[in-house]
Amino acid sequence: MPRQFVLEDLDDLCRGAAVLGTGGGGDPYIGGLLAAEAIRKYGPVTLWDLAEVPDDALVVAIGGMGAPTVVIEKIPNGREYLWALEALERHLGRKVDAIIPFEAGGMNSTTPLMVAAERGLPVVDADGMGRAFPELQMETFNVYGVPAAPMAVVNEWGDSVIIEAGSAKMVEWLARGATIRMGGHTAIAEYAMDGATCRRVSVPGTLGLTQIIGRSIREAREQHRDVFTSLIASFASTHYQHARILFSGKISDVSRRTERGFAIGDVRIEGLEPFAGEMLIRVQNENLLALRDGQVRAIVPDLICILDSETGDAITTERVRYGQRVTVLGVSVPPIMRTAEALAIFGPHAFGLDYPFTKIEDLPR
Amino acid sequence: MPRQFVLEDLDDLCRGAAVLGTGGGGDPYIGGLLAAEAIRKYGPVTLWDLAEVPDDALVVAIGGMGAPTVVIEKIPNGREYLWALEALERHLGRKVDAIIPFEAGGMNSTTPLMVAAERGLPVVDADGMGRAFPELQMETFNVYGVPAAPMAVVNEWGDSVIIEAGSAKMVEWLARGATIRMGGHTAIAEYAMDGATCRRVSVPGTLGLTQIIGRSIREAREQHRDVFTSLIASFASTHYQHARILFSGKISDVSRRTERGFAIGDVRIEGLEPFAGEMLIRVQNENLLALRDGQVRAIVPDLICILDSETGDAITTERVRYGQRVTVLGVSVPPIMRTAEALAIFGPHAFGLDYPFTKIEDLPR
Repeated sequence: MPRQFVLEDLDDLCRGAAVLGTGGGGDPYIGGLLAAEAIRKYGPVTLWDLAEVPDDALVVAIGGMGAPTVVIEKIPNGREYLWALEALERHLGRKVDAIIPFEAGGMNSTTPLMVAAERGLPVVDADGMGRAFPELQMETFNVYGVPAAPMAVVNEWGDSVIIEAGSAKMVEWLARGATIRMGGHTAIAEYAMDGATCRRVSVPGTLGLTQIIGRSIREAREQHRDVFTSLIASFASTHYQHARILFSGKISDVSRRTERGFAIGDVRIEGLEPFAGEMLIRVQNENLLALRDGQVRAIVPDLICILDSETGDAITTERVRYGQRVTVLGVSVPPIMRTAEALAIFGPHAFGLDYPFTKIEDLPR
Repeated sequence: MPRQFVLEDLDDLCRGAAVLGTGGGGDPYIGGLLAAEAIRKYGPVTLWDLAEVPDDALVVAIGGMGAPTVVIEKIPNGREYLWALEALERHLGRKVDAIIPFEAGGMNSTTPLMVAAERGLPVVDADGMGRAFPELQMETFNVYGVPAAPMAVVNEWGDSVIIEAGSAKMVEWLARGATIRMGGHTAIAEYAMDGATCRRVSVPGTLGLTQIIGRSIREAREQHRDVFTSLIASFASTHYQHARILFSGKISDVSRRTERGFAIGDVRIEGLEPFAGEMLIRVQNENLLALRDGQVRAIVPDLICILDSETGDAITTERVRYGQRVTVLGVSVPPIMRTAEALAIFGPHAFGLDYPFTKIEDLPR
C-alpha cells in the first residue's frame, strides 16, 4: 500500500536528511521550508516503495545541484525544481509518472516532495546515491547502466539548459559548467527511466530511512536518552547496518573554499575526553575521508557524519565552524553501493583519494 | 534568380572572409577545406538574396563559437555544424528551410555552405553581424528583436547543449560556458526565424561582399596592381563604402592570451615610411579599436583589418606575430549596423571601450 507523506512527517525527514547527507545535499532547513509550503498548499504526497513502481512508469530524478556554501546565500525561489522537471518533459515529449530523489540528503530529500505535491505525482522511496555525493555521475543509476542524459538544468529565472552527452561524466562536466555560470546553484532533472529499471538500479527505502534517523534523534532527546546510542541502534535495524562513533571533540580548524563549483576543504577536530589526538575530515561538498591521527577510520562511500555533540543534529559542510563540539559518526552503506562497479564510480579513487575502500565494520575503531 | 555557389568560388570567398572577419571568425583555411570537401561531395550550394527568402521559410543561423586561437589546434571534425543544426531541429520539432551565417568572416562564412551542401539547403546571402564579433548577442538579429534562444551548442563528439534563456546576453553567457567546457570551440545553431523577419533584421549581401573582396585582392595581385588601391575601390562600390589605409608598419609587440573563452590582447605596430609613430590595436577575438599615437583612427563596429603589406591577405588574430609587415585598413559598416540600437549592442561601450563611436569617414586620417 502506498503511504502518504504528511506535513507532520517533515521535521523528522529533514533532521534525518541532514545526517544522511554527510555534510552535503544543501541546507535541510531551506529544503524543509520549501516542501512545507508545497504540502500545506497542495496536500500530502504519495510515497511508492520500489516494489510498487509499475514497470512502464516514467520515473525522473530531480533535485538541486551546486555548492552547499552557495545555497544558503543564493536562496532558491522554489519554482526552479518544477521548471527543471517541465523542461525535461518538453524535451522527452512525455509527462513523468513519478519522481525519485537523485540523492538522499540535505534539501535534495525534500525538493522532490515539493514538486510532487504541486504536480500530484508520487515520490519513489529510494534514490540514486544512498547518501549525498558531490557529482552527478556518482549515482547507482549510472553505475547500473541508466544514461544520465538528457538532463535539464534550470536557474531561478527559468533559463534552462538541456544536456545530451555520451557519458554521465560529460553530463556532470557540462551541467557543472552551466551551474557555475548560473551562479553556483541550479535545479536539475535527469536519469529518466522506466519503473522496471528504477527498481533494479535504486538504493531502496532511503526516504523512510531519513525519517527513521530523524525520529531516533528527536525521540532520544524528548526522552532524555543518549542520542548517539539511539542512532546506532536505529541504523542497526536498517540496511545501513553498522554505525559507530569515530571520534568526539572540538573543531580546531576549518579550511573551506568554493572552487570549481564545489565546497572543498578539510575539517580538523581536537579530541575531548575520552578521545585523544586529532581527526581530520576531507570534504568535497560531502565528508569523504576520516583520518584519526593519520589512520583511516571511515572512507567514502561509507557515511561520515559530523553531528553536534549536544543535540545529535548533523552539521552541514557550509555551517561547520571553529569551536563546535562535534561527534563523528561512521555508518556502513548497503551492498548495492559497495560492488566493484559502484566503487569504480564513487569509491575513494574517484575522488582522488589514495586509500583503498575498506568497509567501516572491518576498520579498527 | 537564386545563384549557385560552386567550388571555384570558394578561394575568393575565403580570402574575403578573412578580411571581413577583422581578425576573428576562425581560420578561413580550415573553413575552406571543410566547405570544399562538402561541395565536391554534394555539389554546389544555392544562394538566396534576402529578397528571395519566402515569408514563412524557417531560417536558422549556424557557425562556430570559441576563441580563434583554439580552432587552429583543436581542428573541427566537420560533422559538428550539421549536428548543431539537427539538434536545434529536433528541439523545434521542425526542419529548417534555409541557413544563414550568423557572422560574415573567417570560417563562419564557409561552415554554413558546408552544412547546406550536405543537406541540400539554400544559404541566405546575408548575416547577423556584417563582420565578425566575439559575442553572440552582438547580432543584428538580436538588435532588431529576434530571440537568440533556443540555441544548440555541439562538440566534436556529438555532445550537445540546448539553451533557453530570457536574454541574448544570458544565451551567450551559457553558451560560452558550455564552449569552454567543451574545449574552447563548438558548433552552434541559433536565432531561428521566419523569412519575413530574416529580411528585416539581416545585414544584406555579405557573402557576395566577401567574394568581391577576395576577388579584388586576387585580381590586383594577378595584374600586378596595388592591392590596397584595388580593395578601397571595391569597397567603394558596396554598402561598406568608406575604406582607407589607417597605418602601415611592422608589428613590434603582440600581447595575446586565451581568457574567458576569448583571444584577448593588444597588437602594436611601429610605422614604416611614409608612416611614423605607432598604432595600437585592441583585440577581443576581433580587432576593436585602432589608436594612432593615442588618437582613435577607427573603432568598432567599423572594420579594422590587419593585412599583409606584401600580399594584401588578412592576418587573423591567432596568426598575428612579431615582425610581420602589415597594413591596417579601416572600413565603414552599413547603416543597419550604426543605429543607436545597434551601437548599444555592439558599439564601443559594449566592449568596455571608453571612447564614443565615431564613423571612420568623420575621423581624421
